[in-house]
Amino acid sequence: MTRFAQYLPILDWGRRYDRAALGADLLAAVIVTIMLIPQSLAYALLAGLPPEAGIYASIAPILLYAIFGTSRALAVGPVAVVSLLTASAVGQVADQGTAGYAVAALTLAALSGAFLLLLGVFRLGFLANFLSHPVIAGFITASGILIAVSQLKHVLGVEAQGHTLIEIGGSLLAHLGDANLPTLVIGVTATAFLFWVRKGLKPALGRIGLPPLAADIATKAGPVAAVVVTTLAVWELELEAQGVAVVGAVPQGLPPLTLPSFAPDLIAALALPAILISIIGFVESISVAQTLAAKKRQRIDPNQELIGLGAANLGAAFSGGYPVTGGFARSVVNDDAGARTPAAGAFTAVGLAVAAMALTPLVFHLPTATLAATIIVAVLGLIDLTILHKTWNYSRADFTAVAATIALTLLLGVEVGVASGVVISVLLHLYKTSRPHVAEVGRVTGTEHFRNVLRHEVDTDPRVVTLRVDESLYFVNARFLEDLIQSRVTAGSQIRHVVLMFSAVNEVDYSALESLEAINARLRDMGVGLHLSEVKGPVMDRLKRSHLIENLNGRVFLSQHDAWTALTDRTRRQPSRMES
Amino acid sequence: MTRFAQYLPILDWGRRYDRAALGADLLAAVIVTIMLIPQSLAYALLAGLPPEAGIYASIAPILLYAIFGTSRALAVGPVAVVSLLTASAVGQVADQGTAGYAVAALTLAALSGAFLLLLGVFRLGFLANFLSHPVIAGFITASGILIAVSQLKHVLGVEAQGHTLIEIGGSLLAHLGDANLPTLVIGVTATAFLFWVRKGLKPALGRIGLPPLAADIATKAGPVAAVVVTTLAVWELELEAQGVAVVGAVPQGLPPLTLPSFAPDLIAALALPAILISIIGFVESISVAQTLAAKKRQRIDPNQELIGLGAANLGAAFSGGYPVTGGFARSVVNDDAGARTPAAGAFTAVGLAVAAMALTPLVFHLPTATLAATIIVAVLGLIDLTILHKTWNYSRADFTAVAATIALTLLLGVEVGVASGVVISVLLHLYKTSRPHVAEVGRVTGTEHFRNVLRHEVDTDPRVVTLRVDESLYFVNARFLEDLIQSRVTAGSQIRHVVLMFSAVNEVDYSALESLEAINARLRDMGVGLHLSEVKGPVMDRLKRSHLIENLNGRVFLSQHDAWTALTDRTRRQPSRMES
Repeated sequence: MTRFAQYLPILDWGRRYDRAALGADLLAAVIVTIMLIPQSLAYALLAGLPPEAGIYASIAPILLYAIFGTSRALAVGPVAVVSLLTASAVGQVADQGTAGYAVAALTLAALSGAFLLLLGVFRLGFLANFLSHPVIAGFITASGILIAVSQLKHVLGVEAQGHTLIEIGGSLLAHLGDANLPTLVIGVTATAFLFWVRKGLKPALGRIGLPPLAADIATKAGPVAAVVVTTLAVWELELEAQGVAVVGAVPQGLPPLTLPSFAPDLIAALALPAILISIIGFVESISVAQTLAAKKRQRIDPNQELIGLGAANLGAAFSGGYPVTGGFARSVVNDDAGARTPAAGAFTAVGLAVAAMALTPLVFHLPTATLAATIIVAVLGLIDLTILHKTWNYSRADFTAVAATIALTLLLGVEVGVASGVVISVLLHLYKTSRPHVAEVGRVTGTEHFRNVLRHEVDTDPRVVTLRVDESLYFVNARFLEDLIQSRVTAGSQIRHVVLMFSAVNEVDYSALESLEAINARLRDMGVGLHLSEVKGPVMDRLKRSHLIENLNGRVFLSQHDAWTALTDRTRRQPSRMES
Repeated sequence: MTRFAQYLPILDWGRRYDRAALGADLLAAVIVTIMLIPQSLAYALLAGLPPEAGIYASIAPILLYAIFGTSRALAVGPVAVVSLLTASAVGQVADQGTAGYAVAALTLAALSGAFLLLLGVFRLGFLANFLSHPVIAGFITASGILIAVSQLKHVLGVEAQGHTLIEIGGSLLAHLGDANLPTLVIGVTATAFLFWVRKGLKPALGRIGLPPLAADIATKAGPVAAVVVTTLAVWELELEAQGVAVVGAVPQGLPPLTLPSFAPDLIAALALPAILISIIGFVESISVAQTLAAKKRQRIDPNQELIGLGAANLGAAFSGGYPVTGGFARSVVNDDAGARTPAAGAFTAVGLAVAAMALTPLVFHLPTATLAATIIVAVLGLIDLTILHKTWNYSRADFTAVAATIALTLLLGVEVGVASGVVISVLLHLYKTSRPHVAEVGRVTGTEHFRNVLRHEVDTDPRVVTLRVDESLYFVNARFLEDLIQSRVTAGSQIRHVVLMFSAVNEVDYSALESLEAINARLRDMGVGLHLSEVKGPVMDRLKRSHLIENLNGRVFLSQHDAWTALTDRTRRQPSRMES
């Protein structure tokens, strides 16, 4: 594969495209298009944008991802969490409904696209790893709760603002008296219906003998049914006159050519949110892509994925959209429906373009309560509080990261929540490695094995202390080892030799090197030898570039057994000198 | 030792105090007192405070440290770097020379004392480890340069302000024309003399047969000689009339009782600098204390040291001082002069109290240029640019941390410099562990040893891939392993088994657990087995609390040899199934 083709995966699969793949891709595209129409409108509503923005954000981005992306089944477009993050970021610089709001959303997509491209070109995809799984899980769950609560205003037909659980909840309670009865009926009915479709319909269809794929498609068509029925109800009963909010006029036509703003103030205000959206979007997207690819033994290139998503977001910025990423639900449907290549995505884009040109008048009477219902039911699937229980069982540190991320996201908003989550998980990691497990070991009698003296019956020698260090040595734990050795040696006045067993030490950074030098100097002052055993190749290579080894007040042994034999023999042979 | 006595080390050594210790401590106290008088005045000048503040900061703090500290030889008081940090922090909230400036310095000491006590009581001393050695070395070197440059204004007799190299240097150049000739003569002569005392006198005294200790004391008395001679010169020649700045009137008497401010605004502004000063002071102090203690096989308790230094800083806050810590130079002199217990410090405090009551009129005519000269010569000893070369040889990551800390401290000031240093070293650590060393291993023919296939001649089997992971698995590198295994397995279509050899894996956090579960699920989808070998006890205990082991699409082997034997045998026995 040439360097050029590496950046254009389409050249790879496009060359081998055939009629069978075309048929499979076309079928998948029809199914996904039907599913995406109400979803796109709903997520635009969540992002605070006019409904057409959701459709536009699903057209150019899908096409661009099909050219640059490496996943065969990933479907790119608006998703719930990114829509919420967009509303939060853009809401800080412009008022919803103004022209500035839409331009800010385009700018956010452009910044996000540029940042993703940059990460991809410089192969910096590993930065996404700073988001630990507990932080992501906590964040997604808390976002799901925030989204569901924020949509209640459409179900109730009231005004409510805010970016935290307390703000939104308080605002809802304050306006509860203004609730609009017809809206409430539509909203609650639609929610209940969609919830039943998701939980009750699929098993029921399965029981009456429908094949799983058909049952699944029927389930995914639930939102379409809700949209059609409630739209007809509003139109027939003229419910708008009774205060039911509807989508209203949506322009007919292909996505317009739009320009993001290049105003430095706006870019400065949106830069951090754009980075956050990029990384969260990338993490969500790559997880989906890898899961789907593994089933077919395909490979996803994370850095090329960054380029694909970057191009998709730039496409959104120049065609009236807002930030997008690879969505879980739509990708799974695409895959289940048999999509074989990214061409399925391109056909979906065509389908949505047709919808944008022909179908928009049909949604005039669509009540926003129905769209809110589809969002609420969709995000309920994101909320997974069992992660609290799972991490509690596995590790208190991970539990702390999850719980803090959930609490801070709900109470202080999405941006503070996820940023705190990252900081907390890094600090917890540093704290854990700051007190490494160090075992004093002795020889299992008659063998060459050395085991923890506290757990096993082993041979020891009061003049030789062997410490097995079960962690890489670096600045955060360097001093710990200094303190540990100093207190161990001052406690045992018979000690003549300290052996550090380095079998699990994968790195010794410069701070740890200086600590080892300090330990060496201090032990020399005390008349105690310092020895190393089982040092790994790369660690030894590096230590040899310092003065530690040449100044070592002792020896380096290849194996702990060699160290034990040499040191216990030597001390045994010199009892007179020992006691003098 | 009772719980109570643990917090009062004085009860331990005080009980066994005798006449021999008294004699040794008294002699050390006399020597240290003579050295500290000019040094205390000079550091107060550096901190932007009146000269007596330096003396006061050496009295109560020493007494309190003697009660609460664990080091026998540590001498607590003003030091160069902490004085610079004080000037930087207090200069941001008050103008030098005002009453508000002195109160802010007291408040900074109080906050620092409270923070240190808090860390000590909650045993959080490990937080100091976040400052890596390269960051400390870079910071101290850059601070030394900043201090030396900032004192040039006193040597030149001009005004100059600023907190960065460019600000100070630019300000000096702008005022160069105003230089005062007599001041310049005094400043340059004193600097040259002190530099010669340090570099030339000690070896010369050694050559004429003086014992090292006496030569050392003579050297340390250099500043006193410079002070006496230049003071007499100013007085005799009436140089003040020619524009030579002098110390002037210093109040006579014991340290006053002072109160820090409790204004919330001031506390908010000084909180972060106080934390920074506390941690840097603690790191400097504990390094000195541990080095001195090791020679006598004594133990330093880091958390009790925090309490000792916290008490010392609170003492400074209530007795007209400013933030203090254990100083390197004074502690080494104290130790060399034979100090045996913290009582030597108490006697030094008495000596300084006498000086504060009786000797202050004598420094009226002392030129500030001489004090600046003593500071410049003292801090030149702090500047160590060889750290750049040493870290370059050892590790590029550590070099980056040093170079960035030096550059940012010089260009953006002390606070930004050290904070960036900490962030950079944490990020570099995370980056390094984000791409762990993973070796594909094979069996050394005829043995039970397994080695890297790239470095050794080993037996391999195209159906079994064994990867030795040389790093703990946690969120930063979890996805790396996912990608690595996916690309390795998709590249080799014959692969039936993947074995992960966990001998150097000291931890598997929840993110890594989920990655292992994802790897397991994906390998199952590909029809490939996932096996673990040589999992450590604590790691296995934790994995058993998850569902990974019960769902594992393969086995857990105690040793890699068991894994090799079982998997290569099994695949050999089933060739027909393999090829079907």
